[in-house]
Amino acid sequence: MSLIDDLLNGRMKLHELERHLPADEAVRVRREFIERVSGASLRHIANYSIDMERASARNIENPVGVIQIPLGVAGPLKINGEHADGSYYVPLATSEGALVASVNRGCSVITASGGATVRVTGDCMTRAPVIKTGSVAEALELRKWMQDNIEALREEAESTTRHGKLLKIDPIIVVGSYVYPRFVYSTGDSMGMNMVTIATEKALELLTEKTGAHVIALSGNACVDKKPSALNLVEGRGKSLVAEVTVPGETVERVLKATPESIAEVNTAKNLVGSAAAGNMGFNAHYANIIGAVFLATGQDEAHIVEGSLGVTLAEERDGDLYFSVSLPDVPLATVGGGTGLETASECLDIMGVRGSGKVHEFAEIVGGAVLAGELSLMGALAAGHLARAHRDLGRG
Amino acid sequence: MSLIDDLLNGRMKLHELERHLPADEAVRVRREFIERVSGASLRHIANYSIDMERASARNIENPVGVIQIPLGVAGPLKINGEHADGSYYVPLATSEGALVASVNRGCSVITASGGATVRVTGDCMTRAPVIKTGSVAEALELRKWMQDNIEALREEAESTTRHGKLLKIDPIIVVGSYVYPRFVYSTGDSMGMNMVTIATEKALELLTEKTGAHVIALSGNACVDKKPSALNLVEGRGKSLVAEVTVPGETVERVLKATPESIAEVNTAKNLVGSAAAGNMGFNAHYANIIGAVFLATGQDEAHIVEGSLGVTLAEERDGDLYFSVSLPDVPLATVGGGTGLETASECLDIMGVRGSGKVHEFAEIVGGAVLAGELSLMGALAAGHLARAHRDLGRG
Amino acid sequence: MSLIDDLLNGRMKLHELERHLPADEAVRVRREFIERVSGASLRHIANYSIDMERASARNIENPVGVIQIPLGVAGPLKINGEHADGSYYVPLATSEGALVASVNRGCSVITASGGATVRVTGDCMTRAPVIKTGSVAEALELRKWMQDNIEALREEAESTTRHGKLLKIDPIIVVGSYVYPRFVYSTGDSMGMNMVTIATEKALELLTEKTGAHVIALSGNACVDKKPSALNLVEGRGKSLVAEVTVPGETVERVLKATPESIAEVNTAKNLVGSAAAGNMGFNAHYANIIGAVFLATGQDEAHIVEGSLGVTLAEERDGDLYFSVSLPDVPLATVGGGTGLETASECLDIMGVRGSGKVHEFAEIVGGAVLAGELSLMGALAAGHLARAHRDLGRG
Amino acid sequence: MSLIDDLLNGRMKLHELERHLPADEAVRVRREFIERVSGASLRHIANYSIDMERASARNIENPVGVIQIPLGVAGPLKINGEHADGSYYVPLATSEGALVASVNRGCSVITASGGATVRVTGDCMTRAPVIKTGSVAEALELRKWMQDNIEALREEAESTTRHGKLLKIDPIIVVGSYVYPRFVYSTGDSMGMNMVTIATEKALELLTEKTGAHVIALSGNACVDKKPSALNLVEGRGKSLVAEVTVPGETVERVLKATPESIAEVNTAKNLVGSAAAGNMGFNAHYANIIGAVFLATGQDEAHIVEGSLGVTLAEERDGDLYFSVSLPDVPLATVGGGTGLETASECLDIMGVRGSGKVHEFAEIVGGAVLAGELSLMGALAAGHLARAHRDLGRG
Repeated sequence: MSLIDDLLNGRMKLHELERHLPADEAVRVRREFIERVSGASLRHIANYSIDMERASARNIENPVGVIQIPLGVAGPLKINGEHADGSYYVPLATSEGALVASVNRGCSVITASGGATVRVTGDCMTRAPVIKTGSVAEALELRKWMQDNIEALREEAESTTRHGKLLKIDPIIVVGSYVYPRFVYSTGDSMGMNMVTIATEKALELLTEKTGAHVIALSGNACVDKKPSALNLVEGRGKSLVAEVTVPGETVERVLKATPESIAEVNTAKNLVGSAAAGNMGFNAHYANIIGAVFLATGQDEAHIVEGSLGVTLAEERDGDLYFSVSLPDVPLATVGGGTGLETASECLDIMGVRGSGKVHEFAEIVGGAVLAGELSLMGALAAGHLARAHRDLGRG
Repeated sequence: MSLIDDLLNGRMKLHELERHLPADEAVRVRREFIERVSGASLRHIANYSIDMERASARNIENPVGVIQIPLGVAGPLKINGEHADGSYYVPLATSEGALVASVNRGCSVITASGGATVRVTGDCMTRAPVIKTGSVAEALELRKWMQDNIEALREEAESTTRHGKLLKIDPIIVVGSYVYPRFVYSTGDSMGMNMVTIATEKALELLTEKTGAHVIALSGNACVDKKPSALNLVEGRGKSLVAEVTVPGETVERVLKATPESIAEVNTAKNLVGSAAAGNMGFNAHYANIIGAVFLATGQDEAHIVEGSLGVTLAEERDGDLYFSVSLPDVPLATVGGGTGLETASECLDIMGVRGSGKVHEFAEIVGGAVLAGELSLMGALAAGHLARAHRDLGRG
Repeated sequence: MSLIDDLLNGRMKLHELERHLPADEAVRVRREFIERVSGASLRHIANYSIDMERASARNIENPVGVIQIPLGVAGPLKINGEHADGSYYVPLATSEGALVASVNRGCSVITASGGATVRVTGDCMTRAPVIKTGSVAEALELRKWMQDNIEALREEAESTTRHGKLLKIDPIIVVGSYVYPRFVYSTGDSMGMNMVTIATEKALELLTEKTGAHVIALSGNACVDKKPSALNLVEGRGKSLVAEVTVPGETVERVLKATPESIAEVNTAKNLVGSAAAGNMGFNAHYANIIGAVFLATGQDEAHIVEGSLGVTLAEERDGDLYFSVSLPDVPLATVGGGTGLETASECLDIMGVRGSGKVHEFAEIVGGAVLAGELSLMGALAAGHLARAHRDLGRG
Repeated sequence: MSLIDDLLNGRMKLHELERHLPADEAVRVRREFIERVSGASLRHIANYSIDMERASARNIENPVGVIQIPLGVAGPLKINGEHADGSYYVPLATSEGALVASVNRGCSVITASGGATVRVTGDCMTRAPVIKTGSVAEALELRKWMQDNIEALREEAESTTRHGKLLKIDPIIVVGSYVYPRFVYSTGDSMGMNMVTIATEKALELLTEKTGAHVIALSGNACVDKKPSALNLVEGRGKSLVAEVTVPGETVERVLKATPESIAEVNTAKNLVGSAAAGNMGFNAHYANIIGAVFLATGQDEAHIVEGSLGVTLAEERDGDLYFSVSLPDVPLATVGGGTGLETASECLDIMGVRGSGKVHEFAEIVGGAVLAGELSLMGALAAGHLARAHRDLGRG
């Protein structure tokens, strides 16, 4: 217990424990220290099975254990993708009661309707530093230099990575004497933020050497990472996804207790007009719920839920059936690296058969289908309420 | 094993298991079924200590176990709030390496500078249905009716809840013949979405009865829940937080290897100008990272990370020191209800001493301080790189 | 000609001419000077009939004459408003060929359909200074002081004006140690920017005296004047207008060569979904065109066209007819003051019978109706093209 | 007078007058009719010198005369551009008192500081139709077809115009089964909206013929014309302009009664932070004022003032001097076509020597410089007030 004493009297710092102890021991001592100073009993946090030594090296500092978040499954969900073709169970980690049930209902409807058609419409990861020059003239010279030397910049950038490819530097935004070049990469099965940061840093060294330009910050907020952004909305970031399904009118009525027309009306009133009137960047009901639950289950970066919340839901009556689609321009995803290597995340990827290399597009299409399921289910429920009230109101009148 | 057979051949549905089995058994059978159909081995997902019967009732459907996310602590973080006054260790659940270390460094700087001053500048939860009328004239009559009958609507709404109070209905947005009244409540220590949904539904029954108006959907997307929204940005939602610290110039240089001026310059170039140029709704570096890690640790709704990503960071040199602040208008938070009752979440709240009733403002102030710490640390690191490059560039020239 | 020599050799400045000459003479000499230095012949600019002495005092400095913009009329346009009730000819100043014809066609359709129902749903003018305090604690104290002393602030503000009334100070936005209180006034028949600036300045003197707070700038960009703003979108500014018409299906087909369904489809695809996908703040086809032409005709501030461009157009098939509406939250308007006193502007106001005091709401309703006409006509034309192409495509197939 | 009787009793329509009368006569009769029905006296509207026959053919329908807007001049303004190099007087048409004086003051400061450096950082005009396909798969095929057949589409598009060049089709946004391809052109000295509409329509005929895709509307609101749009903000539209000046500290103090630091502080508090907090799309003080006054003077489309209002102002102390810049991503401009051929507009272009072909970039740079002047002057005035109050507050304390 003397280590705890050292911690308590400040002779040792929390993050120094790993120097003296094996990972699990360090976790235990640190947790006991926290229990001491807070009076809390951390019995459940202590209950972990993941390899804390590996996690300490890659995912966490000052670990005291893990949190547990309930994991449910929804499915089977039939996906007709270019990469995902078949029926899937989708793991969802959440503490919001009714969410898994709702997605599950959507899966039923979609699968009964022949499945969701999903496409990855874009795929890139980006980093946009901010560079300061002395004047607008210099800023434009710098822009031109970058356009003229894209090959040399690419060579530098790609020298740092096996999987990353520099697709373009576009746009290169000029504001006064500041320049914000957006480096756009493909990153394979990794989410790629670290990869593109390192690659961009290398390219910037060449740029600095050749032009004397001064990089203010490696990220100038035109990337745009973990903030809602119109730039991402328009240009896409991570995986851009569109998923659609045509639900027979009969199924809409029987399962969702709604009609294609009522769902279309709710979609217009809420997702389109309501969002426009409130100045929203998301024109949907709850993409963030499904994105969030899949992200937590599979070890994606939780802060990227912000980006995944963007997008537009459409609903339309077509020949008596419901044509329903979701479009998500900005969904950073990975099947390798980051949190995907954590044991429970790996198992969740295994549930869908999308763990590891060469799997990220299949995974992306499943995510698109899952969002479609969750969105369809909630919109159906809102429309059912709408119809029920309409009937009641009529009965009254 | 015959239950698994029943699941496999479709005689039983996944969600029906709890009818036949105790919670933990149902979880086991369901997990084994998933293992069978997917070929995955779900050993770690199986390793849970939470009370799955309670979770099944409140937080999850179709459970197969839990996910584990590494939990670290940052601190001590000194907070000078109206509700939080003292030093805290902040639990952070994340798989993004370096995040806890970065927040921890920010905590050191803040604590060495006398602590973070934090205030809760707003506190409400909202629900805005969409109501359709026959014409703009009817829409305006409805708006007037609501304004004239606010007391009756309040009585209805508040009849459904012990803790919720209807503060106002404002704005009431009219678009064509649609009406979007934003019901604004205080909700005590709960996050309150369920509470305000139920309360609003009750109030709408009165409205429908008295006016004949037709409610299209209980949420018309002017709430605005889990989407980035300018309405929330301006009006606030959840807890609105401002946190600030004045860091002595000497500390900035010694610990952050930067200067107040360099941090101010990076803040302008990146968080203000870069965000403006990219059409961002967030004028900060990475609020979502810290919000996300605290939210997961403490059982908040992960989809609300979207809202917590909004806000503006300011940095300014004041008499040789650094004045640094974060402002977050839209942070839904709870210390009771939802996911906060999950065992590990409760323990995390205990670490800060903010579990249960009467604690949410103290918790909110700690969250504000944690975001300040994370933002300060990253901005300091960017500025240090900026300075290092400046020195190198000078040496070269 | 020696005055021109004085101007040429710099002994006199352009704006000093009025000290030595009557207004018209000063205009002539200045114009001749400009002709000399530029080599231009300014014959048409010289052709004015307005009272230049008065204009020099109120509307322009360094005048050299006037520009002429063609003025057309559209109508009759039947308006069923609360203030405007009857048929109007709407004056439109523009150089964009086909605009007046298009609005005129819309007027025909509306009038043939029984007229446009228009309502003023909001009416205010705003000014939001930025005040800097020493800390967030001081910022909140200042906010509280303003809330507690609203009566005293109102008294000060209203002491400067006969027509202006301070309705509220809301929102009071706090960002770090900055405070942005939005002073919201009613301003009668004036547009009111000057009025509310003077009134707010007076109120701020009291605030400064009592609190010691420091006003950084009288406008802190949360007013929001002449910039597209979500705050104005949500809260309204100037006159907020909604106009609607129900066009019989037969009229849609005969006059617009379209159908209610096709117009609704174009509206969804273009004004709602297209705008959402492009990150637009305007969910309409071309409000700015009609707002612009009416503003120029009637002497409104041309920079306010920016604000008038916001809003949402809706189109819906209802029982075989077309229900069509426009909603404009942010239309600053006047019938007295500013440019409305210019002779041609006064005449244009006379055309509609809305010159002078007590007329601004009637005028506002006409403006709403005119925008409805222009929007309906363009949407009808787009839908007609859509249908024509659909028929042609079918014929081909 | 029988024609007026015909108009009054509906036997003739207003727009039919030109069939029976020469242009000026038709204008007179129409105006008299309006005088009759409204009781207004339209003496000043009657006072025009422009060629109404030509205007009737190109710019206006149902003309009754012209409006007069006072025209002032500001200058001399020294511009150091790539196309504009010298001193200019800038014509400004406005009824907002003090605006010309303010711009004029800015011109003095800039010219005394050696002039404004201005660059055209982008130049394009755009049209983005909305095309509906049957499914996301078809939407992606269509996108691919467009990418693969860009040469054929270019040939079609450019066959309709001598000056227009199709630069690219980018982005091609896919939302559900809708496709929004943004056709981006250079258009020479014309503003180009008509040109690119015709060219795009021709290209779409080929697309329709080859793919069977159905064009819902020639504009799908991702152009984005006359609406505030993040897409334009990021990608640019019309002329993208950056203008800057370095004002010696001494000049800032003597002429503007401010300091570089105080202007920088006001800029941060108001244009950056205030705009961020209010959800503005414009991060400037009043671009729309100067853009508006130049647009009216020179016959630009008044509805494009909306687009010209976007952009970011920067102010910074550099070695005791003030570095000040304006950046406007979205300024549609022309020196030929549209309203520029109106007599007073032509004369205003002549004042700057930028009438006709080959002049639009010179004109654009002058516009950039004028906005810089207006913005600098207002920011200086706000900062002077800020300083004055600071001194007074100190004196008090």
